[in-house]
Amino acid sequence: MNYERPQFFHLMQYAEAAEHDVVDMVSGNPDWEPPAALRDGLREYADADPDEFQYPPSEGLLELREEIAARRNVAPSRIVVTNGTGEANYLAMAAALDRDAGSEVLLADPVYPYYPGKTELLGGKVTLVPTERDGSIDPARFREAASEETGLILVNTPNNPTGAVYSRETMRELAALAEEMDATLVSDEVYDHFDFTGEFESALTLDSDRAIVTSGYSKSMAITGFRVGYAILPERLVGGAKTRHMLVNVATSRPPQVAVLRALRETETEYYESVRSLLRERVDTFTDALDAAGAEYSRPDGGFYVLARFDGFPGTMANAERLVDEAGVAGMPGDTFGSARDEWLRFALVTPRVEEAAARLADYFD
Amino acid sequence: MNYERPQFFHLMQYAEAAEHDVVDMVSGNPDWEPPAALRDGLREYADADPDEFQYPPSEGLLELREEIAARRNVAPSRIVVTNGTGEANYLAMAAALDRDAGSEVLLADPVYPYYPGKTELLGGKVTLVPTERDGSIDPARFREAASEETGLILVNTPNNPTGAVYSRETMRELAALAEEMDATLVSDEVYDHFDFTGEFESALTLDSDRAIVTSGYSKSMAITGFRVGYAILPERLVGGAKTRHMLVNVATSRPPQVAVLRALRETETEYYESVRSLLRERVDTFTDALDAAGAEYSRPDGGFYVLARFDGFPGTMANAERLVDEAGVAGMPGDTFGSARDEWLRFALVTPRVEEAAARLADYFD
Repeated sequence: MNYERPQFFHLMQYAEAAEHDVVDMVSGNPDWEPPAALRDGLREYADADPDEFQYPPSEGLLELREEIAARRNVAPSRIVVTNGTGEANYLAMAAALDRDAGSEVLLADPVYPYYPGKTELLGGKVTLVPTERDGSIDPARFREAASEETGLILVNTPNNPTGAVYSRETMRELAALAEEMDATLVSDEVYDHFDFTGEFESALTLDSDRAIVTSGYSKSMAITGFRVGYAILPERLVGGAKTRHMLVNVATSRPPQVAVLRALRETETEYYESVRSLLRERVDTFTDALDAAGAEYSRPDGGFYVLARFDGFPGTMANAERLVDEAGVAGMPGDTFGSARDEWLRFALVTPRVEEAAARLADYFD
Repeated sequence: MNYERPQFFHLMQYAEAAEHDVVDMVSGNPDWEPPAALRDGLREYADADPDEFQYPPSEGLLELREEIAARRNVAPSRIVVTNGTGEANYLAMAAALDRDAGSEVLLADPVYPYYPGKTELLGGKVTLVPTERDGSIDPARFREAASEETGLILVNTPNNPTGAVYSRETMRELAALAEEMDATLVSDEVYDHFDFTGEFESALTLDSDRAIVTSGYSKSMAITGFRVGYAILPERLVGGAKTRHMLVNVATSRPPQVAVLRALRETETEYYESVRSLLRERVDTFTDALDAAGAEYSRPDGGFYVLARFDGFPGTMANAERLVDEAGVAGMPGDTFGSARDEWLRFALVTPRVEEAAARLADYFD
């Protein structure tokens, strides 16, 4: 396995190295304030007794697990607090593949590039299943792609990069397919707080013993650097996940767990609603400009990414660099997300300069 | 892989559940203050801009890597900042085994139980090599145990549980053996700040392109819960380690990295020396009592553990529980560290109540 600098690092550095002004719409780092209680949690922790600086339980602070359990309506014993949603996905995928019930992994195309990377690390084999043009999943396509070798079906909803929110019926059919195939369904719901439809439902509500749900606080609390996530597993898979977590990481860092716990307890729904409002405005601003530029685009039902297709300007790294050079806007090439959106570019709306970027694009493609 | 609650958790809970007073000498959690600058670092970070709450570079904050590199006299490019020394060991062992140059892992017996656990997770096979009665390693024994299948030799110095500090000559011979066998040497040096001989030398000084060194701040800064460690790898292995780190954890949590960086920069050598003095006193107090109890024991050259053997009282879990019940002292059974010290019990000197525990033991075995 060789170290390949992920494409988004390449592009961020390319944009930074430019001598002119570039609006960065590549990274998925929120640009807004975290909850105030999170900062309070850090301040208070700085004065804690030395014994509170020592190992937390490997599966996470009990109070944090109980807080998550109450919100998600599951037993605390099913929860592992992880080093971000990234580790949660790694543990979930390993739990599915460690069953030796098949090494084929079905992933929706376009695909978040870490999923195939993790699949390879864990010795699995990727099969990409195309999504529909509007980003939705047709479960029949997953059924066609499934085989005896299928051990894992992994989806991300709300979705990066399409902005799709999969319906409960879609998720129910994927869980049923997983059951038929003696496989596991993993639903990565890290964008669960950014649902603009009001209809998003977690795969937890399926109450399926085939389903693992992963999420975290990187996006909802604007703290991608804190690395606090969690996996909720069926009882029969949670033991193996805890063992792997312990052997790889021993435990998740304690200061960020303490800060997140306090923020969970003290943050009012207004905080989350205000971020959703902000993003809704940015979506409107940006898609208005895309209309003006004559682009096709995905209007996100959730998350904070917009996919846009400009005629004669496919989503290659060369074109993404050209856009940096000539328009002063950095977006991700769609061809880094599998093959289904290689005509598209992805723009992350996590910058206060969305309006400016939109104007530049409208101008450039006019 | 099933989740087995590590034995030390079992014993800590057994001691906590006792209705009488028990001195906990099981856990390896320092009981002293972290450096003052570490707390300052957390306080300052609590007020940082939101962009400082976002993803650090996957391999660690550049300033932290540069600080470590300067102290360890290596290029920053060889360093991966990890979720504690635990993840550093996982990455180091994976780097060795991913080479497909053999799946046999040579470990010194007595052995820190996570090493065989990680070996199994990574698909390797453990061969335990006995150490000498004084805890030292005879490289000839490793040579006898080595085979074409040997891919990794892993040692811990200063050692948990024996307190041995391996000589530079021993480490040089192990590195030479690794080279002959086309294998990799991993030296876990997490207790590097607790050398009482003044003669400990890191395996980095061997300047071998076969050697990986792991360490961290859990013990030296008394912050086992912060999870900040690092691996220093030869250039040819560092790429694979970075890839695995990224795919498993994305990055190490940022708040503890910031706090550790500040503590590294501002903490005077007096801090570390005062902790060593404290531990030296505890070793004297404790071993005096063991003399009074007629026990055989290891006087540690480094680290903070003492192995003790009481006639007719082998190091089984049953006897460890009996010691909790009847003497009010909790120590780890030696048989949890492989087979070489199954007559012994391990006592961690990370409690202010060492004197009291020593008196209880002297009294009980009198």
